[in-house]
Amino acid sequence: MSDTTFAPVPMRWLGPVRLSGNVMTGEQEVPLATYETTLWPSVRRGAHVSTMVDGGIQATLIDERMARSVIFEADDAPAALAAARRIEADLPALQAVVSETSRFARLIDVNHQIVGNLLFLRFEFATGDAAGHNMVTLASDKLMAHVLHADGALQYSSISGNYCTDKKASAVNGILGRGKNVVTEIVIPEEIVRRRLRTSADKMAHLNVRKNLIGGAVAGSLRSANAHYANMLLGFYLATGQDAANIVEGSQGFTHAESRDGDLYFSCTIPNLIVGSVGNGKGLDVVTENLHRLGCAEDREPGDNARRLAVLCAATVLCGELSLMAAQTNPGELMAAHVQFERNAR
Amino acid sequence: MSDTTFAPVPMRWLGPVRLSGNVMTGEQEVPLATYETTLWPSVRRGAHVSTMVDGGIQATLIDERMARSVIFEADDAPAALAAARRIEADLPALQAVVSETSRFARLIDVNHQIVGNLLFLRFEFATGDAAGHNMVTLASDKLMAHVLHADGALQYSSISGNYCTDKKASAVNGILGRGKNVVTEIVIPEEIVRRRLRTSADKMAHLNVRKNLIGGAVAGSLRSANAHYANMLLGFYLATGQDAANIVEGSQGFTHAESRDGDLYFSCTIPNLIVGSVGNGKGLDVVTENLHRLGCAEDREPGDNARRLAVLCAATVLCGELSLMAAQTNPGELMAAHVQFERNAR
Amino acid sequence: MSDTTFAPVPMRWLGPVRLSGNVMTGEQEVPLATYETTLWPSVRRGAHVSTMVDGGIQATLIDERMARSVIFEADDAPAALAAARRIEADLPALQAVVSETSRFARLIDVNHQIVGNLLFLRFEFATGDAAGHNMVTLASDKLMAHVLHADGALQYSSISGNYCTDKKASAVNGILGRGKNVVTEIVIPEEIVRRRLRTSADKMAHLNVRKNLIGGAVAGSLRSANAHYANMLLGFYLATGQDAANIVEGSQGFTHAESRDGDLYFSCTIPNLIVGSVGNGKGLDVVTENLHRLGCAEDREPGDNARRLAVLCAATVLCGELSLMAAQTNPGELMAAHVQFERNAR
Amino acid sequence: MSDTTFAPVPMRWLGPVRLSGNVMTGEQEVPLATYETTLWPSVRRGAHVSTMVDGGIQATLIDERMARSVIFEADDAPAALAAARRIEADLPALQAVVSETSRFARLIDVNHQIVGNLLFLRFEFATGDAAGHNMVTLASDKLMAHVLHADGALQYSSISGNYCTDKKASAVNGILGRGKNVVTEIVIPEEIVRRRLRTSADKMAHLNVRKNLIGGAVAGSLRSANAHYANMLLGFYLATGQDAANIVEGSQGFTHAESRDGDLYFSCTIPNLIVGSVGNGKGLDVVTENLHRLGCAEDREPGDNARRLAVLCAATVLCGELSLMAAQTNPGELMAAHVQFERNAR
Repeated sequence: MSDTTFAPVPMRWLGPVRLSGNVMTGEQEVPLATYETTLWPSVRRGAHVSTMVDGGIQATLIDERMARSVIFEADDAPAALAAARRIEADLPALQAVVSETSRFARLIDVNHQIVGNLLFLRFEFATGDAAGHNMVTLASDKLMAHVLHADGALQYSSISGNYCTDKKASAVNGILGRGKNVVTEIVIPEEIVRRRLRTSADKMAHLNVRKNLIGGAVAGSLRSANAHYANMLLGFYLATGQDAANIVEGSQGFTHAESRDGDLYFSCTIPNLIVGSVGNGKGLDVVTENLHRLGCAEDREPGDNARRLAVLCAATVLCGELSLMAAQTNPGELMAAHVQFERNAR
Repeated sequence: MSDTTFAPVPMRWLGPVRLSGNVMTGEQEVPLATYETTLWPSVRRGAHVSTMVDGGIQATLIDERMARSVIFEADDAPAALAAARRIEADLPALQAVVSETSRFARLIDVNHQIVGNLLFLRFEFATGDAAGHNMVTLASDKLMAHVLHADGALQYSSISGNYCTDKKASAVNGILGRGKNVVTEIVIPEEIVRRRLRTSADKMAHLNVRKNLIGGAVAGSLRSANAHYANMLLGFYLATGQDAANIVEGSQGFTHAESRDGDLYFSCTIPNLIVGSVGNGKGLDVVTENLHRLGCAEDREPGDNARRLAVLCAATVLCGELSLMAAQTNPGELMAAHVQFERNAR
Repeated sequence: MSDTTFAPVPMRWLGPVRLSGNVMTGEQEVPLATYETTLWPSVRRGAHVSTMVDGGIQATLIDERMARSVIFEADDAPAALAAARRIEADLPALQAVVSETSRFARLIDVNHQIVGNLLFLRFEFATGDAAGHNMVTLASDKLMAHVLHADGALQYSSISGNYCTDKKASAVNGILGRGKNVVTEIVIPEEIVRRRLRTSADKMAHLNVRKNLIGGAVAGSLRSANAHYANMLLGFYLATGQDAANIVEGSQGFTHAESRDGDLYFSCTIPNLIVGSVGNGKGLDVVTENLHRLGCAEDREPGDNARRLAVLCAATVLCGELSLMAAQTNPGELMAAHVQFERNAR
Repeated sequence: MSDTTFAPVPMRWLGPVRLSGNVMTGEQEVPLATYETTLWPSVRRGAHVSTMVDGGIQATLIDERMARSVIFEADDAPAALAAARRIEADLPALQAVVSETSRFARLIDVNHQIVGNLLFLRFEFATGDAAGHNMVTLASDKLMAHVLHADGALQYSSISGNYCTDKKASAVNGILGRGKNVVTEIVIPEEIVRRRLRTSADKMAHLNVRKNLIGGAVAGSLRSANAHYANMLLGFYLATGQDAANIVEGSQGFTHAESRDGDLYFSCTIPNLIVGSVGNGKGLDVVTENLHRLGCAEDREPGDNARRLAVLCAATVLCGELSLMAAQTNPGELMAAHVQFERNAR
């Protein structure tokens, strides 16, 4: 039948994680909900390392926007091009249309691609504290209606054109932007690298080149050079009521590691973090509570709660990435850790 | 602290879905756990359509295997190539190593890639009813030890080489295989297409070409031509205790639609369904109960429960894909449906 | 030794091709230089079809620009982001730097990507009648010097950052633009399709979906859905003194075919045509003569000769694509045509 | 009209290049035909460095095969799967069909992909000294006829299915193999790196990570991490009568650089070198002469001339890649070298 029940995904609070940056500074525990509970001790180790370093993890919000694409059909390419130019010249009118659909939605930019007689428009929006899926669908619906009304040369083809693109492996989101683009970085003194991570900066840099960069390239990866961002993203998304299917594009990011005179520079660049502090899923008691505990349900400027959520999520990704990669520099440690943890878990 | 609590993801049973195929035939309700609860009525519509067609959705299991890659370092490429040849000639010995690690793990094949002096090996395994992440990690650990012991020309580089590849957007999994490769198909009579889906076969075929195939290509997608497989995969994975981060590669599949004299041929090809009926997450009461209700906890030949789970998941994907695409052929229906459902949900 | 000799690549003039569009209208023979001389009759057939249709091939120039990327290193991501913002706010100053390097180079836009502490800048230029490789390298060299001088937070990392990207398979060029983006279209009456191409609009549309779109996706293609653009591009580039290694990105484009009540709508979208009517290679007698004969060495507004060259090249691509695809709809025709031509060639 | 003339592409012999490896050992000058004549001094510098190192460039042939894909249509996926299994079980009969089409063509393997009711078969062949385009098209034509005759469940869909894939940017060729897969490596003593390349091993390793690996990933590259393989491939292909449009897939390869105690380990992995010493284009006087001069027109075992050609081509790629990357480690050197060369060229 159709009664709602619940899938109870195991969740723990880990940390604290120490952060600094243009969005927040301080320490904060973070929740991870996952059936793969071996993830917890791994992320916890990374979190602990972050507290041993001044400033901890530096998180930088590079950009934020939400995108939706639509398809129009014209008679031919010249008609499609002329329409694209009219539409892009009409940006203020489009922005007015959008502003009527939501207090928070704001049209930032429009991109187009023309294939034969098809016109793909990609609308980019600011969406306040919401991840924005529904907000941009509604806005795009109204934008399409506006354009179809104003422009006799175009016909409806699709409200969603896959040039957005939502929850699919593509290059467009990283290049044009979709979601929050966050870079996290940490510089870990040599001794902490050795004692807490049982590795060295050189080993980490080597592994990153061989596994994430070269291995990724060999596998035919697309804008992906990391070990397992998707794991931490999933756990954080589920714990905070996100549309977790967005880990697909979230997984596409870049780990970079270098030795700085023996200290380890380690960074995670995550261009497509799609999170919100309001919207679907946020009304559930546990989610509400988690957002409060994360300090992401405060009375702030619109967007600030979501930004805080994004950098906490990104920092959590770094903790897990750091810890797994350190383990993989050591033959045998990976399985030993697994076995040990599962034994303890009994 | 470290006490385990739970993220309660809203779940409903939908259906029944009608299936036939080389793995199972019959009707079965399916669970979807998601914060995006508008997914439920959409999938339900598709499920209902499946019951109106003889045989319903035809699901075909094309292939199944689980992969793990490792990296060795040699002095140079000739040494790497010679080692690769020795290792691949030594398959029976490798299979013996694997058989000692698990009753269910069986080494099927080994692929290699050489980049400079680096040797990437990709081991492919049968893993019974388990998705197999841990099984293949353990097996690969032992295989690496065996190879390092047997072959003085190689050094350890990494237990995970990203040529697997796990939870990242790449081409290798679709081309060499990873997880269960399932094709689902349905042929829907014209009248049902018109009355239940409010569209036509031609409109569906056109939308598929423009949005999924061309739109996907324009976005720089990789082996992805679909509307939203990730949504249904996430919901099904969470409801059945799967490692849901595998929706990353799961999302990479192909929708194909054609008119057959006005009837709609509609198919979803999902090459990387990574599911198991045993393993992490399966011991939770709700999950256990769900697997029972799905008929995936029976006393069968090893692997049969997991295969049943895979085709049920794939059929669920088809139901949601069919329904959303039908909606997108109609201007305005998408948002109207959203608004209506959310109003009802209050 | 180092004496210059010449590789004589067989060349023929084919056509005429009939064109109309925002750049040129009229008929023009086109040259193709290739060792694969079976290409000639194939392209000729397409050219002949173009002359049987009013207006012939409609060519639309969608966009044009040339790009070059550089890498700077900052201390960390905040420093990289701050520098990116300063640089992008400083666009007029950058444009002044560029204008001193060439009469024709004009800086249009700057994009950035930040990975960890690395700042990738992608400069986009108008380059007049030149393809612009050297022009943008020189300009970028000066821009780097300007930025390094003005901004103490950045250090030189590389004059070429592969985010351009030149002569490599990537998504960025199609999404942000590089070279001339040209769409060519033709609508061929049913009878001509049947008699001259021995096929039907439906067969062509079907083949395009199955081979170019689905087959391309299955192969893990990147922004590529066509049969053989590279062949015609190579032949045209060699005949006109272009840097033919740019067929790598040139090959990434989209064929679209539909039946319009039995008539065939056929289009080729080629987003990355990198051609010039001046620059390296243009001083050779044969090349000079060819450019004259193509009407691309006239005394026109800067850029007009190159634009004419681009649409002629794009139209040539369509001729070859149309012809080969028509042949592939017919079992056996392909090889028969090969055999026949090679027999005649003796 | 249709008289054959010639595009005279400027050509020079450079070197000698010193090689060792499983295919050839010795010194050999190599020809490069290109309109971008600044390529010559750059490649020459790399060639000269190769002669200063014992053994020079070590070239290893990893694999060789030529592929062609076709599409069949079945009623549904079960029929497609059953047919695929019958076909793959029938390999000896298929091999017999192929052996009748050419003395040199030999069917090595068959791969399949199923999308809905479509069956993509990818045939892999050994093709002796030919690149093999025509050989495998003829063989595939006969294979299709054989299959259609033997298997009533399948219908013709296309003689070319883009799962080959020829001259398009994709992942399949690198993963399954197409053309000759060659790794070239050199270890250059620190002093030669400093004096001849004016750089250091550390600088080269850093640049490779930042530009080729990270920059490539950021650009959304597909199995491409190099600076400019396409340039050298084009020049070598044109000088030796190759189908130079295959530089598209040829460009997809991996540069790897490391410091070994100050010495530079530098390697180029080129998985898709598609070259032949016989076939179209080889009958031209200049080409014949060039193949003789390269020692690739000897009376040897079938395939040996083509293999020698492949490793010479791959070594030439390394020379150019090494030289350009060294230049790019030095701010300003790139443009200075250009200017200097062009001045000398007057």
